[in-house]
Amino acid sequence: MTPERFAKLRRALERRQPDLTVLADAVHKPHNVSAILRTCDAVGIHRLHAVSPDGPIRRHHMMAGGSKRWVEVVTHASAEDAAATLRGDGWQLAASHAERGARDYRDVDYTGKIAIILGAELYGPSEQALSQADFSIRIPMHGLVESLNVSVAAAVILFEAERQRREAGLYDQPRLDTQEFNRTLFEWAYPDIARRCRARNLPYPSLADDGTLLGNPLVDDG
Amino acid sequence: MTPERFAKLRRALERRQPDLTVLADAVHKPHNVSAILRTCDAVGIHRLHAVSPDGPIRRHHMMAGGSKRWVEVVTHASAEDAAATLRGDGWQLAASHAERGARDYRDVDYTGKIAIILGAELYGPSEQALSQADFSIRIPMHGLVESLNVSVAAAVILFEAERQRREAGLYDQPRLDTQEFNRTLFEWAYPDIARRCRARNLPYPSLADDGTLLGNPLVDDG
Repeated sequence: MTPERFAKLRRALERRQPDLTVLADAVHKPHNVSAILRTCDAVGIHRLHAVSPDGPIRRHHMMAGGSKRWVEVVTHASAEDAAATLRGDGWQLAASHAERGARDYRDVDYTGKIAIILGAELYGPSEQALSQADFSIRIPMHGLVESLNVSVAAAVILFEAERQRREAGLYDQPRLDTQEFNRTLFEWAYPDIARRCRARNLPYPSLADDGTLLGNPLVDDG
Repeated sequence: MTPERFAKLRRALERRQPDLTVLADAVHKPHNVSAILRTCDAVGIHRLHAVSPDGPIRRHHMMAGGSKRWVEVVTHASAEDAAATLRGDGWQLAASHAERGARDYRDVDYTGKIAIILGAELYGPSEQALSQADFSIRIPMHGLVESLNVSVAAAVILFEAERQRREAGLYDQPRLDTQEFNRTLFEWAYPDIARRCRARNLPYPSLADDGTLLGNPLVDDG
């Protein structure tokens, strides 16, 4: 861990947006999951939610582009569970779905606590997810194709969110709480030590400002 | 061909942007080609350029999402050929490439005659293509992943172009020249008759305002 690399990790965390997320409902194709995760990282999404009835999304889905390590994925057993959990946690739910009455995606305020619900190719979000959404958003389509690729639609919406958040100064100072910031910084910088600390229920060691380890509780661990 | 369907084809053509295009340089993955074509159709790109040293891009690359029929693909033998052809035809060439000195994609004027050069995953546009570009454009990245998926980057840039063009009123009246408009409308409405006319070197028959065929030169054709 060079000081330069550590500074880069810290800068990325200073730009994370804890009040912006995606709920991926029935997005299955690995290349779409991968593209969405890369976009999430780029706009500063810290944690993505995914409906995955079969348990955690298969690991290889997450590996492409290196984004697995940077964007945490929380899986939910069903769209209802996911929506109820997010709603209970104060999230507004906006479904990307070009139905009648959907709002133009540029007319939506993305500076509050908002989750974008993405659905499968062709069908969009499930009925269960749509019934939980506060409203739907649509992207203007001037041609004849009915819908965009799901990772493309996600990016168009998320970079509008990025534009609004940049204008609002939301990338200008750290927004994660200190505990999560420090925990994540340690896990990014020293993933192996972090894993072994968790396995042994030990606190993470402290870090100097340049990322140097200050003591290591595992040093006698062999 | 119902009158409703014909009106829909006509409306899409009325929104085509003959002075906006993409040059896909070394974009090979079928799902990326397909996603880019769908996005092109959505923002009104009439014709996409692709570097394809092996001749026309394989047909199945183009079929997903139904966009093959709506966005014409012109293939070029090399990036140099493609860039020289476009430049000779008055296009400004902007490469999507996050190099030092690249402009933020929102600081670029997309209302003129402009082609966006897209490159392969990881490597970006080829040296040959970059050397021909007027400038490079970059998308802000707040995280740790180095680049976006290529079809995602294309969409983020093209929907900024769409935003500028909508504001400038460029979707408000037909912009294709009359000859190309009418030719394309006929080919979209009656692809089989169009193909047979071309094979026999016959002019396309005229159409009524509701899309009804006014005479058919192939009627005695058996």
